[in-house]
Amino acid sequence: MFFLIGLGLGDAKDITVKGLEIIKKCSRVYLEAYTSVLTVGKEALEEFYGRELIIADRDCVEQDADSILAEAAEKDVALLVVGDPFGATTHTDLILRAQQKGIAYQIVHNASIMNAVGCCGLQLYCYGETVSIPYWTDTWQPDSFYHKIKSNRTRGLHTLCLLDIKVKEPTLESMTKKKKEYMPPRFMSVSEASQQLLKIIQNERLDCVTSSEKEQNFSLAYSENTLCVGLARVGSPSQQIVAATLKEMSETDLGAPLHSLIICGDIQPLEEEYLQQFLSKSCPASIFKNHVGS
Amino acid sequence: MFFLIGLGLGDAKDITVKGLEIIKKCSRVYLEAYTSVLTVGKEALEEFYGRELIIADRDCVEQDADSILAEAAEKDVALLVVGDPFGATTHTDLILRAQQKGIAYQIVHNASIMNAVGCCGLQLYCYGETVSIPYWTDTWQPDSFYHKIKSNRTRGLHTLCLLDIKVKEPTLESMTKKKKEYMPPRFMSVSEASQQLLKIIQNERLDCVTSSEKEQNFSLAYSENTLCVGLARVGSPSQQIVAATLKEMSETDLGAPLHSLIICGDIQPLEEEYLQQFLSKSCPASIFKNHVGS
Repeated sequence: MFFLIGLGLGDAKDITVKGLEIIKKCSRVYLEAYTSVLTVGKEALEEFYGRELIIADRDCVEQDADSILAEAAEKDVALLVVGDPFGATTHTDLILRAQQKGIAYQIVHNASIMNAVGCCGLQLYCYGETVSIPYWTDTWQPDSFYHKIKSNRTRGLHTLCLLDIKVKEPTLESMTKKKKEYMPPRFMSVSEASQQLLKIIQNERLDCVTSSEKEQNFSLAYSENTLCVGLARVGSPSQQIVAATLKEMSETDLGAPLHSLIICGDIQPLEEEYLQQFLSKSCPASIFKNHVGS
Repeated sequence: MFFLIGLGLGDAKDITVKGLEIIKKCSRVYLEAYTSVLTVGKEALEEFYGRELIIADRDCVEQDADSILAEAAEKDVALLVVGDPFGATTHTDLILRAQQKGIAYQIVHNASIMNAVGCCGLQLYCYGETVSIPYWTDTWQPDSFYHKIKSNRTRGLHTLCLLDIKVKEPTLESMTKKKKEYMPPRFMSVSEASQQLLKIIQNERLDCVTSSEKEQNFSLAYSENTLCVGLARVGSPSQQIVAATLKEMSETDLGAPLHSLIICGDIQPLEEEYLQQFLSKSCPASIFKNHVGS
């Protein structure tokens, strides 16, 4: 049997009792370590579970999935995933492969950023489409998420931005070589994401100035003064939440990963009351008034 | 200290190790039992936790919250909530009250339908705004969720529909009486929700026929043939998932609660491949083609 087990978001004890019981009886347990990370590492998990874990990096899960599954045909094998197992397409794909091989599987759900983000007080049913913000390079600066944020805010909805994670990415130079070299792991911070978002509206404004046609119906998805919420290490004791303007957020350091960013839509009274506790000191009290369009 | 602990979705063992440790050390533990339910009851939870639970119904949480919190000022008190603690506005409100009283609190996250719905293979980042479908009465038939579904589908996004739960609702006759009488608990099924959704488009069509102006730009949010996914008891061993047209779904019995319904938007290739396993036998193979607008 193949088990896909969610670990939740904080530390070793965020696993469910069901998940822990399965880990203890499996003959092999893999730890997926590139779509997300906990605030504790492999060693802390091994100590708490009382057993050895095998790190499953991108190459292992995406190119060597058959060997993980081959074991699962005869024995109990588990793959541990930070958050919930269905947070990444990779895991959906893995279940499909198991089915094709006739291998039984079981999912053990857990919290993920998609629902735990509720901890900032913005109600989950007031979010539009979730977007992913990738690291830009000098030559690759996609901004399709900008239009999704715009579409959400036009409807008064919040946007959860999942921030890029680069773990075990081969260097550009070693891509064609036999022996790959890897870049150090990177986790996009709330301030990096905010800087990219600010860059996009600067470009949009420049673009508008050069086109009189566009100028007539010009409106930005958000501005420097748009209310945002930055979250770091959700679900752990060191969790940090800050509500501030996008400009402020671009200069805010929330420390160690993982970070997530919310671009707010319309704010309901209960949401406003709850957000107050996270408001940065320099944030104007008027931030909640007539929010969308500001 | 006040603890708000998510129980996840399936049975007693879906609690996290962290959550279970807290339950064992608290002097009082309340079980919130009206915004959602597990597939097991209070007794099964009490047996697994090895301690007594106090049922916290709507009256208790919304009108008698102060007494729950009063205890928490001196002792450790926990409120257990099905799914994740931030799934319902009631719980956000409770945290605010605790803060106002200067009572420290801790949240223990868990899976909720908002992320566990990923189990049907539709990717979480392809959903628009979540809607709630309430039970209609003869005189109260709100349909604001219809316009949200339309807005989502116009953008090719899926819509998760949370279905109404009526637990310990006073009867209309006893509302003004001193001694309230309660209706038996009701949980909206996937077929009931689908019937209401079909009723709305019948009304929209009638409405259109009587207005030639509307007829010109007439388009429905969905039709009888729109692909939907019905889910029951997600995260439990008896979990059931069916993909079918809305018309079929209105005649499909998925058994015991809780149910959720998804109105699909555009289907990506990986989503289609995954959904195949849940497709009802009578569903046409063409269901995935040119989906939105059909």
